[in-house]
Amino acid sequence: MQRAERLIRLTQLMMERPLHAISLASLAEQWGVAKSSLSEDVATIRQTIADAERGTVETLVGVQGGVRLRSGVPTDERVTFLNNLARTLSEPGRVLPGDFVYMSDVLGDPYVLDTVGRLVAMQFADKAVNVVVTVETKGITLATATARHLNVPIAIVRRDQRVTEGAAISTHYVSGSTRRIQTMSLGKRAMPSEACALIVDDFMRAGATARAVVDLLKEFSAEVVGTAVFMATSQPTTKMVNDYFTLLRVHEVSEHGANVQPALT
Amino acid sequence: MQRAERLIRLTQLMMERPLHAISLASLAEQWGVAKSSLSEDVATIRQTIADAERGTVETLVGVQGGVRLRSGVPTDERVTFLNNLARTLSEPGRVLPGDFVYMSDVLGDPYVLDTVGRLVAMQFADKAVNVVVTVETKGITLATATARHLNVPIAIVRRDQRVTEGAAISTHYVSGSTRRIQTMSLGKRAMPSEACALIVDDFMRAGATARAVVDLLKEFSAEVVGTAVFMATSQPTTKMVNDYFTLLRVHEVSEHGANVQPALT
Repeated sequence: MQRAERLIRLTQLMMERPLHAISLASLAEQWGVAKSSLSEDVATIRQTIADAERGTVETLVGVQGGVRLRSGVPTDERVTFLNNLARTLSEPGRVLPGDFVYMSDVLGDPYVLDTVGRLVAMQFADKAVNVVVTVETKGITLATATARHLNVPIAIVRRDQRVTEGAAISTHYVSGSTRRIQTMSLGKRAMPSEACALIVDDFMRAGATARAVVDLLKEFSAEVVGTAVFMATSQPTTKMVNDYFTLLRVHEVSEHGANVQPALT
Repeated sequence: MQRAERLIRLTQLMMERPLHAISLASLAEQWGVAKSSLSEDVATIRQTIADAERGTVETLVGVQGGVRLRSGVPTDERVTFLNNLARTLSEPGRVLPGDFVYMSDVLGDPYVLDTVGRLVAMQFADKAVNVVVTVETKGITLATATARHLNVPIAIVRRDQRVTEGAAISTHYVSGSTRRIQTMSLGKRAMPSEACALIVDDFMRAGATARAVVDLLKEFSAEVVGTAVFMATSQPTTKMVNDYFTLLRVHEVSEHGANVQPALT
């Protein structure tokens, strides 16, 4: 196999499964090339991807040895992406009754989802997350994209209890917007043991939903490393969760549109 | 920029956004290289990826000209993947009351989701799909993965009507399992005009849900090109939708486990 071919194949394998370790020893055998050649190829790929700010090639040592790609987003692309999103979401036609901002089209766009997934994964890169937890329904697309870049499973908290989830733990909480008592339920088999969870959702106002997920996850003895949302309101400034990360912030909403700004710079 | 670097960058750009067209003219300008060099690079990438059965590099002509990657799965990987899934889902411990098979862990696994997304996208590659439609909740992760590989948006049918979806069209149908009248609702803004929709869901028994989505999509004047599910039951053999594609088929379910088999070979 020639060098050009190896570079393409290696780049493709790493990109198909971000953070999945690829064993160079196995590949060398499979492709019939020297492991030292593959190591040189990896060095070239690492440098090229780093120069382009499109991720980091990591080398793992030991039994689980191998190379893997941590996804990235170049700074200029991130700035443009968030500015464009903020502008789109500030359009007057998006304000719904109750001062909600219509976001479902954006949360269904594959480029938006993938880029949000990368940005959230980058933010929690050093946290040893082993599960992404979201609440049905609108957070699921974002959670799926984030879990792909973190290479961890997704667990979906349901609003009701379903037979298809098997044995589940349920809790109750008071919704921030409706002030009604709501139920949350998570299947026991959906969570890894010794879970280190990242909560992902689309929107946060007071943070009652995220708080309820944190409380539910305590019943699983899970550690929660943080909460990431796509958009949070600027008011109230103090949320019901201590630590949260948001990509966008909505300042005020009127009939003339919402004032949405990037929260990251 | 050297050839090795160009090959890595081009492969990465194509893989980050499957089916998104990249203009070689723009890249040539941005990178300060001759377009003919990039064309040669693309030829090498096309051949390498084709040889590895990991996709197809397509060239678009005209104003929208450019190159793009259509994702693929090698035959041997597909066979292994489906056999492993069938074996996992046939484990005795997975049978829930009502003869449901527990699948939520599998539907939350990032490798499973990505591979299912690739396989479904390959199956409908020639159908000009411009939106993936799913029904909350368990189909959403699969729909997200599929939409990524088809480079189209996702629209989520809700079980109730939500203010956050804006104006919506609702329909009613009789559930296949509970025989109760259920509501379905889809926001008007979630669908493209002249929609050509692929329905994606996790599970099909009689097909009542898929049938209801087909009927709902008629109200949007959408064309439905097909229905793809992760797993379908072998009984009843005749489903309520004419055309469906499934990766797995479950033959019988007992306390000793389900008999799940690959439906694709």
